[in-house]
Amino acid sequence: MEFNNSKLYNMILEKESFLCVGLDSDIDKIPEHLLALEDPIFEFNKAIIDATKDFCVAYKPNIAFYESQGEKGWASLRKTLDYIPKKIFTIADAKRGDIGNTSTQYAKTFFETYNFHSITIAPYMGEDSVKPFLGFDNKYVIVLGLTSNKGSSDFQHFKNAEGTELYEEVITKVQEWGSPDQLMFVIGATHPEAFRGIRNLAPHNFFLVPGVGAQGGSLKGVCDHGMNEQVGLLINSSRGIIYSSSSTDFADSAREQSRKLQSQMSDILKDSGHIR
Amino acid sequence: MEFNNSKLYNMILEKESFLCVGLDSDIDKIPEHLLALEDPIFEFNKAIIDATKDFCVAYKPNIAFYESQGEKGWASLRKTLDYIPKKIFTIADAKRGDIGNTSTQYAKTFFETYNFHSITIAPYMGEDSVKPFLGFDNKYVIVLGLTSNKGSSDFQHFKNAEGTELYEEVITKVQEWGSPDQLMFVIGATHPEAFRGIRNLAPHNFFLVPGVGAQGGSLKGVCDHGMNEQVGLLINSSRGIIYSSSSTDFADSAREQSRKLQSQMSDILKDSGHIR
Repeated sequence: MEFNNSKLYNMILEKESFLCVGLDSDIDKIPEHLLALEDPIFEFNKAIIDATKDFCVAYKPNIAFYESQGEKGWASLRKTLDYIPKKIFTIADAKRGDIGNTSTQYAKTFFETYNFHSITIAPYMGEDSVKPFLGFDNKYVIVLGLTSNKGSSDFQHFKNAEGTELYEEVITKVQEWGSPDQLMFVIGATHPEAFRGIRNLAPHNFFLVPGVGAQGGSLKGVCDHGMNEQVGLLINSSRGIIYSSSSTDFADSAREQSRKLQSQMSDILKDSGHIR
Repeated sequence: MEFNNSKLYNMILEKESFLCVGLDSDIDKIPEHLLALEDPIFEFNKAIIDATKDFCVAYKPNIAFYESQGEKGWASLRKTLDYIPKKIFTIADAKRGDIGNTSTQYAKTFFETYNFHSITIAPYMGEDSVKPFLGFDNKYVIVLGLTSNKGSSDFQHFKNAEGTELYEEVITKVQEWGSPDQLMFVIGATHPEAFRGIRNLAPHNFFLVPGVGAQGGSLKGVCDHGMNEQVGLLINSSRGIIYSSSSTDFADSAREQSRKLQSQMSDILKDSGHIR
């Protein structure tokens, strides 16, 4: 399946959800009874996907957790990608970015070797580090704007003489390089006060929003200030869903947590007039 | 072998070289006769390492070129790391960086699973994205300062009201998080005019310097303005060495190119009084 903003919007309306489930699948945190199986990470993901696929529109494997397992981690990632239903959007949370010829290799990794629909990118190295990812049809680049972590205050708020902060400069300039059907931004839910300003800077782009749940962000705060005419938000929850139980009932518990978020999202979609 | 700045300096004096060979080993660019072998990338690296190990102090595999080959690329990387002589410094050119618990996973990947001495890191996400890498003994974090590519001008020169540019802010602030035996910076050779100012900002840190050769930077310009009392420079050359011939004589040609650079470095070390 190939995606663009209107296909994403249609899926959101159909599933009454704009939930992204983060597959930060940590070998040290998955339930113990899985460890005896041949590929515990994949078995964990498979059960999580079965339990949550009706309630979400995207899956976001966090590449670090696969990479740290060496070659077998990448094999688990490949099997996971193959297992995700084809109608669901996939995000490689990889935060890559390098000079042009190197970024081309990273793009090949995630868009061809592993066939993701999108990848997260760090903007520090500028245009030639982002452009190679934009050369692939029907793929999205998701550029870090204002991240959800404490360290976001170290450089992202660095301000020029006109009062423009670095993250605003990034969000403005990156849009010159591609269309809203090619570009999303990562905007952390821990900055609800900044969402209205950021939405003004990028009215038509989807935002990938981490930080609801374990990191403390509020779903309603984000939606009140960040929605656009196509919803324009993919709200990620990782630990709050996949580790809500560490026992044999982990998949049921993940189903319940994702269903709860989906239900809140359904209410928000009704209240905001996107669905009746 | 474990490294710190004085061990690096001793190796530089001993080998009369501060050359880093970049292993950007691209399956589409290595000599055709290797493609029939079981692991062409590893065979290429093995021949390059045999040919250049007497002339360099560091190897820098560019992770993108391994990652794009999927699981077998990571296996080639592992074999390459095992093959590099233990006395030579290794750099994972990976440009990673994420929220704390994720950066910890990336640190495990490169410092434990693949046992590199160091890794390159993008600073955009701030302190908690860098700190987990600093929790490993005798390992270096190499933070992007001013990169060698054209896109470095997009955000790295973003300037505050006092005239401080983002890359200067990064170089200053990151030093609060670790010692010069833990932290290096990436400073591109394509900005020789900036080296003196950057050396003033970070007098005791080693700089990893890409951009000599294919990207047009000058070795002498960098050394004139960037050396410190321990030399403080690792000059990288990738394409200029490893692809100097695309034929069966590629290893001899790489030996010749690395020997030439080593010889220029030896002269510079003499002229600057580091060796007699």
